[in-house]
Amino acid sequence: MGKLLIVGTVAFDAIETPFGKTDKILGGAATFIGLAASQFEVQSAIVSVVGDDFPQEYINLFKDKNIDTSALEVVEGGKTFFWKGKYHNDLNSRDTLVTELNTLADFNPVVPTNFKDSDVVMLGNLHPGIQMSVINQMDKRPKLIILDTMNFWMNNTLEELTQVIKYTDVITINDEEARQLTNEYSLVKAAEAIQKMGPKYVVIKKGEHGALLFNEENVFFAPALPLEEVFDPTGAGDTFAGGFAGHLATTGNTSFNNIKNAVIHGSNLASFCVERFGTQRMIDLHKNEVNKRFHQFKALTQFDIELQ
Amino acid sequence: MGKLLIVGTVAFDAIETPFGKTDKILGGAATFIGLAASQFEVQSAIVSVVGDDFPQEYINLFKDKNIDTSALEVVEGGKTFFWKGKYHNDLNSRDTLVTELNTLADFNPVVPTNFKDSDVVMLGNLHPGIQMSVINQMDKRPKLIILDTMNFWMNNTLEELTQVIKYTDVITINDEEARQLTNEYSLVKAAEAIQKMGPKYVVIKKGEHGALLFNEENVFFAPALPLEEVFDPTGAGDTFAGGFAGHLATTGNTSFNNIKNAVIHGSNLASFCVERFGTQRMIDLHKNEVNKRFHQFKALTQFDIELQ
Repeated sequence: MGKLLIVGTVAFDAIETPFGKTDKILGGAATFIGLAASQFEVQSAIVSVVGDDFPQEYINLFKDKNIDTSALEVVEGGKTFFWKGKYHNDLNSRDTLVTELNTLADFNPVVPTNFKDSDVVMLGNLHPGIQMSVINQMDKRPKLIILDTMNFWMNNTLEELTQVIKYTDVITINDEEARQLTNEYSLVKAAEAIQKMGPKYVVIKKGEHGALLFNEENVFFAPALPLEEVFDPTGAGDTFAGGFAGHLATTGNTSFNNIKNAVIHGSNLASFCVERFGTQRMIDLHKNEVNKRFHQFKALTQFDIELQ
Repeated sequence: MGKLLIVGTVAFDAIETPFGKTDKILGGAATFIGLAASQFEVQSAIVSVVGDDFPQEYINLFKDKNIDTSALEVVEGGKTFFWKGKYHNDLNSRDTLVTELNTLADFNPVVPTNFKDSDVVMLGNLHPGIQMSVINQMDKRPKLIILDTMNFWMNNTLEELTQVIKYTDVITINDEEARQLTNEYSLVKAAEAIQKMGPKYVVIKKGEHGALLFNEENVFFAPALPLEEVFDPTGAGDTFAGGFAGHLATTGNTSFNNIKNAVIHGSNLASFCVERFGTQRMIDLHKNEVNKRFHQFKALTQFDIELQ
């Protein structure tokens, strides 16, 4: 069984979509990544921080999902990272209404000893300084370091981010961010430019329009499953990353073909995430639902043509 | 060899993109459809109208491509339909600067006798009254009537358009137009609603984000090939339709599987169209280039996963 180390936020989210709104619910990049990865046969651990306002039931939830929480620091008297956002009518864009870093502001990540030899390290979206600290604590070079990040870090901590990018094998990033990072409009050219910065594999996430995987002259594409309703896109990118990392940690195979498969598994899981608010859909997601939808994915994309 | 009847505009286009601009060049829906369909073993004919300003060399071009021009009416003293447009920087939207209907304003289409038994009728984008007239002139129900249309006709001639839609087997339409036609934001729901209006098959074109095919509970998706540069999107949708119709006319097989294949062939050809201004790339496109890119398409989308 592969070992997967996850670093990222564990948070409270308050979300408003055209379909409804929530008070503070469980959220955060590491949360979504961990829940998605728990669909695979992996030993995973979350490195993150919360305040003592973080309910024990959520910590128990992680444990139930076989996620090691020994490196989930609970700061006495501290408050958990809080994000509040509102989606526009098309769900493709959103406004951040509140960001309270709270305990995250002074977080020093500590990698648990028994995860210093992890096969895969998944660096979820947060400060690149924290991501780098996790890389530096590893006993040996993991088979795969996967980085997820966003425009906020490009705008504010580009130098540190560039350093992390240099050390990663795979980056997952959305289309606008890929363009911003490289000043290339064409995603093909942007992916080429990013490969020169370090990562051998570049995954460009296009939300409802699917995800592209680039590696040298290889390109692979996985669509998002067309859904009757998208309810809440929060966490879809993290869920993609969690499915991607979970599959690679289980299989331990970093060939292009297997990374293609990881893109499919990530896309498949992300299609569930958006069906309910926050983590709701991911928490009680069953293997047979995942497998059933995988077959839909296959029908959606596979064809058989003989050329004349 | 299947027979394909094409109705649509034959036009002069003047195009401005971020990469350059053209004076009047060959354009029009029927032109792009005919050129794309000429990649297949089909007997095709264009029903359309031009003025006597339309160069003989263009008519010869159609003939060279084995496209019957006996129903391409040339109006003495008339002027050819003219469209001038300018694309925005992202190439995803454009402004129409000039539309001169000219001879198209009073066009009465006449289907050539030897094409009244066509296997496939491709109704390219133009006035639904003209499209309906072509349907009515057929001697027998074609195997497949394919309709392409756009928001202009929804805004101005919805009743006539609805009538044509009722008679068609396949509609190709872009995502925004599908939403406008049905008042459904979800493309899954929009496709369901359109199927209730008549067409068994609904193809929703999403430009650079690919195309979706819906039929009852089946869904299939083909991405657009990621290109280093998109030079001019003009005619990409018509080229898609031409490849789609050409494949179906050659094979004569209207199963869901074969319509999936038609979507792939259409997407493949459209990826060439956008590489140069107007029809330039399509005119001298060779079969071996098409086949080579088809293999890229396969690599882009096909995977092989065994579920645990």
